[in-house]
Amino acid sequence: MVVILKQDAPKQQVDELLQWFNSYGLKTNIVVGEHTTIVGLIGDTSVVNIDNVVANEIVETVKRVQEPYKNVNRKFHPDDSVIEVEGEKIGHGNFKVIAGPCSVESEEQIIEVAKRVKAAGAKFLRGGAFKPRTSPYSFQGLRADGIEMLLEAKKETGLPIVTEIMSLQHLDLFNDVDIIQVGARNMQNFELLKELGHSKKAILLKRGLANTIEEFLMSAEYIYAGGNSNIILCERGIRTFETMTRNTLDISAVPLIKKISHLPIVVDPSHATGIVSLVEPLALASVACGADGLMIEVHNNPKMALSDGAQSMTPDGFDETMNKVKQLAGFYNMTL
Amino acid sequence: MVVILKQDAPKQQVDELLQWFNSYGLKTNIVVGEHTTIVGLIGDTSVVNIDNVVANEIVETVKRVQEPYKNVNRKFHPDDSVIEVEGEKIGHGNFKVIAGPCSVESEEQIIEVAKRVKAAGAKFLRGGAFKPRTSPYSFQGLRADGIEMLLEAKKETGLPIVTEIMSLQHLDLFNDVDIIQVGARNMQNFELLKELGHSKKAILLKRGLANTIEEFLMSAEYIYAGGNSNIILCERGIRTFETMTRNTLDISAVPLIKKISHLPIVVDPSHATGIVSLVEPLALASVACGADGLMIEVHNNPKMALSDGAQSMTPDGFDETMNKVKQLAGFYNMTL
Amino acid sequence: MVVILKQDAPKQQVDELLQWFNSYGLKTNIVVGEHTTIVGLIGDTSVVNIDNVVANEIVETVKRVQEPYKNVNRKFHPDDSVIEVEGEKIGHGNFKVIAGPCSVESEEQIIEVAKRVKAAGAKFLRGGAFKPRTSPYSFQGLRADGIEMLLEAKKETGLPIVTEIMSLQHLDLFNDVDIIQVGARNMQNFELLKELGHSKKAILLKRGLANTIEEFLMSAEYIYAGGNSNIILCERGIRTFETMTRNTLDISAVPLIKKISHLPIVVDPSHATGIVSLVEPLALASVACGADGLMIEVHNNPKMALSDGAQSMTPDGFDETMNKVKQLAGFYNMTL
Amino acid sequence: MVVILKQDAPKQQVDELLQWFNSYGLKTNIVVGEHTTIVGLIGDTSVVNIDNVVANEIVETVKRVQEPYKNVNRKFHPDDSVIEVEGEKIGHGNFKVIAGPCSVESEEQIIEVAKRVKAAGAKFLRGGAFKPRTSPYSFQGLRADGIEMLLEAKKETGLPIVTEIMSLQHLDLFNDVDIIQVGARNMQNFELLKELGHSKKAILLKRGLANTIEEFLMSAEYIYAGGNSNIILCERGIRTFETMTRNTLDISAVPLIKKISHLPIVVDPSHATGIVSLVEPLALASVACGADGLMIEVHNNPKMALSDGAQSMTPDGFDETMNKVKQLAGFYNMTL
Repeated sequence: MVVILKQDAPKQQVDELLQWFNSYGLKTNIVVGEHTTIVGLIGDTSVVNIDNVVANEIVETVKRVQEPYKNVNRKFHPDDSVIEVEGEKIGHGNFKVIAGPCSVESEEQIIEVAKRVKAAGAKFLRGGAFKPRTSPYSFQGLRADGIEMLLEAKKETGLPIVTEIMSLQHLDLFNDVDIIQVGARNMQNFELLKELGHSKKAILLKRGLANTIEEFLMSAEYIYAGGNSNIILCERGIRTFETMTRNTLDISAVPLIKKISHLPIVVDPSHATGIVSLVEPLALASVACGADGLMIEVHNNPKMALSDGAQSMTPDGFDETMNKVKQLAGFYNMTL
Repeated sequence: MVVILKQDAPKQQVDELLQWFNSYGLKTNIVVGEHTTIVGLIGDTSVVNIDNVVANEIVETVKRVQEPYKNVNRKFHPDDSVIEVEGEKIGHGNFKVIAGPCSVESEEQIIEVAKRVKAAGAKFLRGGAFKPRTSPYSFQGLRADGIEMLLEAKKETGLPIVTEIMSLQHLDLFNDVDIIQVGARNMQNFELLKELGHSKKAILLKRGLANTIEEFLMSAEYIYAGGNSNIILCERGIRTFETMTRNTLDISAVPLIKKISHLPIVVDPSHATGIVSLVEPLALASVACGADGLMIEVHNNPKMALSDGAQSMTPDGFDETMNKVKQLAGFYNMTL
Repeated sequence: MVVILKQDAPKQQVDELLQWFNSYGLKTNIVVGEHTTIVGLIGDTSVVNIDNVVANEIVETVKRVQEPYKNVNRKFHPDDSVIEVEGEKIGHGNFKVIAGPCSVESEEQIIEVAKRVKAAGAKFLRGGAFKPRTSPYSFQGLRADGIEMLLEAKKETGLPIVTEIMSLQHLDLFNDVDIIQVGARNMQNFELLKELGHSKKAILLKRGLANTIEEFLMSAEYIYAGGNSNIILCERGIRTFETMTRNTLDISAVPLIKKISHLPIVVDPSHATGIVSLVEPLALASVACGADGLMIEVHNNPKMALSDGAQSMTPDGFDETMNKVKQLAGFYNMTL
Repeated sequence: MVVILKQDAPKQQVDELLQWFNSYGLKTNIVVGEHTTIVGLIGDTSVVNIDNVVANEIVETVKRVQEPYKNVNRKFHPDDSVIEVEGEKIGHGNFKVIAGPCSVESEEQIIEVAKRVKAAGAKFLRGGAFKPRTSPYSFQGLRADGIEMLLEAKKETGLPIVTEIMSLQHLDLFNDVDIIQVGARNMQNFELLKELGHSKKAILLKRGLANTIEEFLMSAEYIYAGGNSNIILCERGIRTFETMTRNTLDISAVPLIKKISHLPIVVDPSHATGIVSLVEPLALASVACGADGLMIEVHNNPKMALSDGAQSMTPDGFDETMNKVKQLAGFYNMTL
């Protein structure tokens, strides 16, 4: 941590501040310039509340030097993490596709889609049972029944299932779910993250619409710090001023996170853009820049989908896209 | 709703689409131009899933004409709502200040601050018991004990209390809380909003960091639709590219929401900027543009605050600011 | 400047870097921790290219400590600047209103509007002659003729005039213009800024749609460094994800800039929102938080305006708003 | 264009508005609902000033149906445009790499870099002579001398050159430049765009930091409408709240623009992120999602670069990246 003091800081107050840092076991090193005085702090500065330092009237600014995340930091864990779920691995060259409808709508629908996406090469089935919707008047999901239907589809196809949790209160319903998804709107639902940290389930953590990469990793840190290291990150677009796409896919986050964290990261091009014709090119871009997988919305009848029809592929469209994804993954010596 | 069809839409598919709209009881009106065909829909279009329409291959775009919010819409409720809590009114000329520390840290601290903010003219005491923190290693609040301390402070001073709920599971702990705050990160925690809709408590709903004004009103609509109309909105800054301030206070949201909704709206200049010296000028700006109140962080010792010290006023600073706020409110014939 | 070195930086390369800093006349101070090494630099670090330092393979990050702006920095110029144009002062308690149509459309129009805004209390007449328009098919302004008409309006009313320059090539046409406006889209047209730095004219510099406050001050620094200190800043809204308003007025920029710079700053609530009914509340908010003036669009017939009709006030509406602005300014002991 | 009228619009005013539309040769079609009245306009609505319509007191909102760009719209020009410069084609499967230093610093430097990037497979040499810099105290480029040095490098290597224009006044200096770059900060310098529309030179138009895709295409429309169809678009990152990268590369813009416009689009991963280690993965992502080329910063000694060292590759690094780009392009049957 580096602390910049105000020009006219009285010596006594400076000494008090230095003693306060020392009381936390930190070494201090002070450099006095004409217009600025810089205090360098060495040691475990995570024990110091940065807000308190800024609130001190002799302090101009404080700059943190170390990353605030530890468990998910590649510095302290140089090897790629590999997450294994029902025999399927994600990460470190294991590229996997998760596919399925935005919402589970009926047993027939989810089984039909599951069969098609499995045939196309997806290794996980997604489907929303609890649906976060902007409007209270929109379809809210089949809830517990939706999870039952996903489990039926798993029985039929063998595909492990991924579905979103919206509230801690529903946790018991997720006992047989293979990967619990934390949606973008819950990325900073810290009570939920803490509880999932005590679980052994794999967690698919989506980046929030307005969250920085550092905050994204800090949310993963919440889960990891609780004891659960089975975390898959998911970039799904951030909110910007652009209105032609639903969100802006932050593709740079993929190679950047691969560099600073050891966790696998997948990309959701469906939610990132909201436009079905952009899903394939962005899926290919994700493969090319090192993502560990994809999450794609597929619906057997997008026109009649109860949610997100505009961004859902048909099973036939998904077949075509998967062919191209497989070829490109093969070019990079990855098998799906 | 207005539906724009693609140039080359085949007549049969157009007819099918029109029939589908009719099946929902909607009147359709079609206008054919050289390059575009426009279908106007009249009736209750909220029954139609806009995603399905966009997913239709003959549709180019869909434009919604009516606001998606109803209960909170001023069109259907022209008079200002007034929220009354423990005898104190907010809205329609009743301007109220909510003040207190970011976090409750001890009984002594919260009682001392409560006395000071009451003396300065605040009518509600705020204090965080459950704290949403980006880092799992930061102080997480005193939780249930914090609420007990707030209730002690209420007993001592008579000030009704405002505190944030982070999870539905804690709802029972909020039985004696006067105003339940839904924080920015939970603005779209829809399960929580639904449950609060069944409560009779006043709800202070903060705008999310990346949420539009329409989404903000839709979250209020969730609570209102459940049967609870005691909603106070709170503008607290949105996330933008600017880094000198913690967030960007969207002051325009205040007069805009006053125009399109009947709910009262207060401003939180402390969280909006994160800089204590900006709190006073932004508080005055809020009064001048028609806000119904303010929420201000005050700490008896900001340097030692366990959270948000950099944006907390001292009690003495708060006295000065309140004098100016009162004078300006008086100029506008409002009493605090 | 503070330089953070990588954990494993070889001693020889560190020594080379330190010598390189010394060669610029800088004192270096090195603090070695377990995971990090911090180098503090003291002296005039503006001579060092920060990009070069970051590009060094042993450097992890570089953090600047001093503000990059000097001339416009309040630290080196504690007193408020007052800009005087044709006998009218702006800044340090001198609050002034600039008003007029978005575009000059005819001599009759501009004279009529000039008379009305003067009668209402405006001290400067604005009007666009050269118009930056997103579409090449939109009205582009009357150009040189527009400036002639503004000068006619000045002759009739005595109001000094403000109009926007879009290209260096037109500079000769601005000889009799009183305040040259640099529009948001040209805030970083550095060749233009340099040239205006050699002028003696007052410059109204508008903040760019995507520019930080620091960049805004750096653009003012360009003008100031060239020798022209007659600079009035103008906050006019930034681009965010919100779509209900045209831009998001960054009201916090007003008190923040007053704190860190000595230049006067005015607010343009018309462009900030694009909604005429929001102009008055935001004008009042601007007065309350310490702005030095306002810039407001007024058109004698907004329905027939050739640009920006939706955000233009009528002269009658402007009369009403000015009454409230004058009263509030009076409350703060300022006269318009 | 679709016009939504207010609920209580008096019949006489509605009739006046309809007549006003008719006076522009537009057909109107009115649909009256319980809460809303919709007017559909058919014909060339580009003649109507949308601002005037919004400013009408009986109008609630106006929604445009047709794209405002014509010449660059794929609807009216279904085939890909191919831009040919000095025998090198860009677009429609012709993938080209533009490479070179941020700034031209000396004849030796630019010639050395030119030889290296040519050997690696680049077909165009970039180098800044006029440099837009945030600070007036930063290196501003070698200006006219820089262009001379680029021409020397062209003579040595045969590579056509790309360099940025910052002001119309310098246009004469660009007579021998092969591709004139319009930088992000000048994307809406409309006077410059108009003049370049009268040129025959190829123009590389970079997207502005805060500009939507629609505005980007409208700026291309300015050039095209003037008579110059030799336009290459360049996505180079937009400004968002994320701070770990300099900008956020909007990769979705590539396939989206390919869909709605016929112009070629290249990607600049160097400026998009400002981090050299991200350039290669983003270059590959760009190839995979259909970009027509790349623009990459290469410097023979990034540590000593006068600008943008942190994002510049070394020639050796560029060799490696180009090998991967060529292989991937080959996989897609494109040759560089």
